[in-house]
Amino acid sequence: MIATDNYPDNDTINDGSYVLVVLNERKRWLTKAIKGKQFQTHKGFFKFDDIIGKPYGIKILTSKNAPLYIFKPIPSDLLSQVPHSSQIIYPKDAGLILLYGGISPGSKVIEAGTGSGALTSILANYVRPSGHIYTYEIREDAYKTSMKNIENLELIQYVTIKKQDASLGFDETNADSIVLDLGDPWQIIHHAYDALRASGSLSIFIPTYNQVEKVIKKLKESYFGDIIGIELIEREIQLKPEAIRPKTRMIGHTGFIIFARKMVRVEIE
Amino acid sequence: MIATDNYPDNDTINDGSYVLVVLNERKRWLTKAIKGKQFQTHKGFFKFDDIIGKPYGIKILTSKNAPLYIFKPIPSDLLSQVPHSSQIIYPKDAGLILLYGGISPGSKVIEAGTGSGALTSILANYVRPSGHIYTYEIREDAYKTSMKNIENLELIQYVTIKKQDASLGFDETNADSIVLDLGDPWQIIHHAYDALRASGSLSIFIPTYNQVEKVIKKLKESYFGDIIGIELIEREIQLKPEAIRPKTRMIGHTGFIIFARKMVRVEIE
Amino acid sequence: MIATDNYPDNDTINDGSYVLVVLNERKRWLTKAIKGKQFQTHKGFFKFDDIIGKPYGIKILTSKNAPLYIFKPIPSDLLSQVPHSSQIIYPKDAGLILLYGGISPGSKVIEAGTGSGALTSILANYVRPSGHIYTYEIREDAYKTSMKNIENLELIQYVTIKKQDASLGFDETNADSIVLDLGDPWQIIHHAYDALRASGSLSIFIPTYNQVEKVIKKLKESYFGDIIGIELIEREIQLKPEAIRPKTRMIGHTGFIIFARKMVRVEIE
Amino acid sequence: MIATDNYPDNDTINDGSYVLVVLNERKRWLTKAIKGKQFQTHKGFFKFDDIIGKPYGIKILTSKNAPLYIFKPIPSDLLSQVPHSSQIIYPKDAGLILLYGGISPGSKVIEAGTGSGALTSILANYVRPSGHIYTYEIREDAYKTSMKNIENLELIQYVTIKKQDASLGFDETNADSIVLDLGDPWQIIHHAYDALRASGSLSIFIPTYNQVEKVIKKLKESYFGDIIGIELIEREIQLKPEAIRPKTRMIGHTGFIIFARKMVRVEIE
Repeated sequence: MIATDNYPDNDTINDGSYVLVVLNERKRWLTKAIKGKQFQTHKGFFKFDDIIGKPYGIKILTSKNAPLYIFKPIPSDLLSQVPHSSQIIYPKDAGLILLYGGISPGSKVIEAGTGSGALTSILANYVRPSGHIYTYEIREDAYKTSMKNIENLELIQYVTIKKQDASLGFDETNADSIVLDLGDPWQIIHHAYDALRASGSLSIFIPTYNQVEKVIKKLKESYFGDIIGIELIEREIQLKPEAIRPKTRMIGHTGFIIFARKMVRVEIE
Repeated sequence: MIATDNYPDNDTINDGSYVLVVLNERKRWLTKAIKGKQFQTHKGFFKFDDIIGKPYGIKILTSKNAPLYIFKPIPSDLLSQVPHSSQIIYPKDAGLILLYGGISPGSKVIEAGTGSGALTSILANYVRPSGHIYTYEIREDAYKTSMKNIENLELIQYVTIKKQDASLGFDETNADSIVLDLGDPWQIIHHAYDALRASGSLSIFIPTYNQVEKVIKKLKESYFGDIIGIELIEREIQLKPEAIRPKTRMIGHTGFIIFARKMVRVEIE
Repeated sequence: MIATDNYPDNDTINDGSYVLVVLNERKRWLTKAIKGKQFQTHKGFFKFDDIIGKPYGIKILTSKNAPLYIFKPIPSDLLSQVPHSSQIIYPKDAGLILLYGGISPGSKVIEAGTGSGALTSILANYVRPSGHIYTYEIREDAYKTSMKNIENLELIQYVTIKKQDASLGFDETNADSIVLDLGDPWQIIHHAYDALRASGSLSIFIPTYNQVEKVIKKLKESYFGDIIGIELIEREIQLKPEAIRPKTRMIGHTGFIIFARKMVRVEIE
Repeated sequence: MIATDNYPDNDTINDGSYVLVVLNERKRWLTKAIKGKQFQTHKGFFKFDDIIGKPYGIKILTSKNAPLYIFKPIPSDLLSQVPHSSQIIYPKDAGLILLYGGISPGSKVIEAGTGSGALTSILANYVRPSGHIYTYEIREDAYKTSMKNIENLELIQYVTIKKQDASLGFDETNADSIVLDLGDPWQIIHHAYDALRASGSLSIFIPTYNQVEKVIKKLKESYFGDIIGIELIEREIQLKPEAIRPKTRMIGHTGFIIFARKMVRVEIE
């Protein structure tokens, strides 16, 4: 399992272990170390047999003498590595959704749509071991891809993937948190209200201002409170000791995230 | 416990339950609902007896008819509510540290320094139930405050607070992740290396460029790899449907976060 | 005149000279040095007679021994000092409008609306000596305030203020540049097209996304080209040598600026 | 001349006129329309004879039927078009330097170093007609390139380019404004003090934090006041009416700009 647990052999790369292979900040791959196979890059290849039985954190040279670094995957690696079939969630946004979305170990979470399963995997990792993710995806290809990705990460026991249209409603009730990551979330907000427990959290990821406008209008019609909208801008810092500065090129925008909490009407005399 | 679990009575405010009382985006309080007591704001008071036995997510009017909203706390509430005795960690930064710091349910984490215990509480929440946080704090007042804060949040079983100077070294070894949140982290980096397992993650939160420079120089001397520096800028969006725009005033800077992973030297023939 | 010219006595504070009085980064005042009068601050007062005849750039102590600095005003001071009666333009935005709006010495510029006259003064300063600003303002109070402000800055010879509704059209034609700084610029875009010379520049300052949407739809209906939208985020840097960092609090948003250029239909055989 | 003046034939493309040829937001060229020649792009060519005698603002099709737009150049075009031989100044930064650097029509300005002459050209445009730029460049190739660029833009009458080392001091005194745009500005700050008039403005453009630190230390040793540091972050907005959002990719950092004003010591009894 990709998630970190304190096995005695936690530090050793085994046959079948997931490894992160790093060439540099941009070129990095999440893959399985398989006995007898080799890993190919444009800077040469190496044999998995040479790293199996060794600890994570080692350096290995390719056939062309390029240094590669072999790390044990951490959650942020999942987002940069899973093949994407839809809009991308970055670690900064996933982290914010955990905290503002009220998602913790033990949480019951509903997600729509699944996409590549990247965010689903992050959520699954953080509700372990007693929580669960119910995720909705209508597109056949995304359903299959996400299933494969989440199985590969050995997180499928914490996830139920449903090939269903979320705009028709959710099967679950009493969810702690609902995450909407699809193009028309305003069509699902009233279903999200019904499926949440009282005071449960709703998180909506949307890239455009036009979507923000539609979401807000719908939220104001529903009985949600504590509505906030956040955009995180990530600046990478160039870490040359004699020339420290924000990097010249950056990702300028990923999306806006709207958070809200379900309110309930109760007579207080 | 503040963290979410699926108890049958999960949704009901009990005597002694933690509640988040919300007046507006700025004015909000994390407090315990205590039978027979009342909660005072500058907009009037209400009696806890009026909300105990009710579900979370309700609206209640104060003695001066101001509406207050009562929510079940989520992780982001912890950071805005714990009385701060040192530099502040925001949800955006805490979320990033979870993902890039490789902190998951089950993780063994070392933190220095504890400060108010706000970040400690977040980390404790996310390593539950089988992980643990070992946190170092040399200042007497911060040690006591953090102890009280973490106990109040019922997270103390996942935390060991040590009144010790981290610059003298850590007692633990084989940690999955180490988080440094103090003024002179460069003095602790070599101890962090020793205390981490192979491929373990180091996260360093620092507000100034001068600190970035010192940290980088020290990291380059140690055997850490995959070093990255990130600053997150958070823009809150004004959500009036007819006037959507980034808010005029914002927190322009909290800090830079440097992430690195421990490498190990192994002979590969 | 506030604008800089190379008079022999350029450096001397005279009776009637404009001066910038600086207490610190936040507290600063643009005022006239008047013989026999004194200048009052919450940190004490000083007499103008004590600085008249002295050069700009001096330090003077108030009656309470607080140091004040007396500078010769520069363009950025105009924007922070003119009493504002409407939305604020910052130096960063005014500078961008000069360059992307094609406004240079000699330019014929139309502006709507005048507001406090702050941006008008900046534009007037930069079209000197042979250019001119025609500025439209419908509100009586803003008309009067701007007249007084621009006269005080001795820039009125470069400006014609018209108490007219710009949505009824402009009197001028063949303008090099038009700047719209009012709430509903989409109602004026077709008039702007008519009043611009071929290839002339249009600059539209708007605070909300909703306004961007309306402006863009209208621009697409008109025959404008090279349409771009820019938002400038200004971070002030804390300049303590041992603790250099972006400042904690900042202005997060002033507005979006949309730039476009007038196209003309000509048969090219 | 590239700068805008109100000639009767201001709107007509003549033989030898500067034109901006726009394919899209990224692909654009500043060039001279020369009778008998043609302009080549990767999307086909067109003949200048087809646009000479026509107004600016027209659309023309290339030999491959790609639409190109022909505009009259404005100041921002100068910065994107001059071939760069050193660090780049963007319109946002140049505009800020005008306003905070106290540079207006009539100003006497010193610049070091000249580089490609791009910023020099902007400054020259805005001090017209009675001001002047004295610019220092030690590198032979930059000296020649900038000379050619500024001559081409017909701004050379407002500029004196000196092939001299600015760290040895400036020949001029009583300057209204000095702009430092080179790698080691801290070595020139005392010369800048000597060359400025009382209350004159100093602007220093530097890309790295390390340079900020050195500059600030030097400024604190000199007698400069009102020192501020600014970084402008430019976000381009995607202007699709149904999908308005900040663009995904952006330039994350160009540089920090430090502004200061010369103070003078005068006995005030």
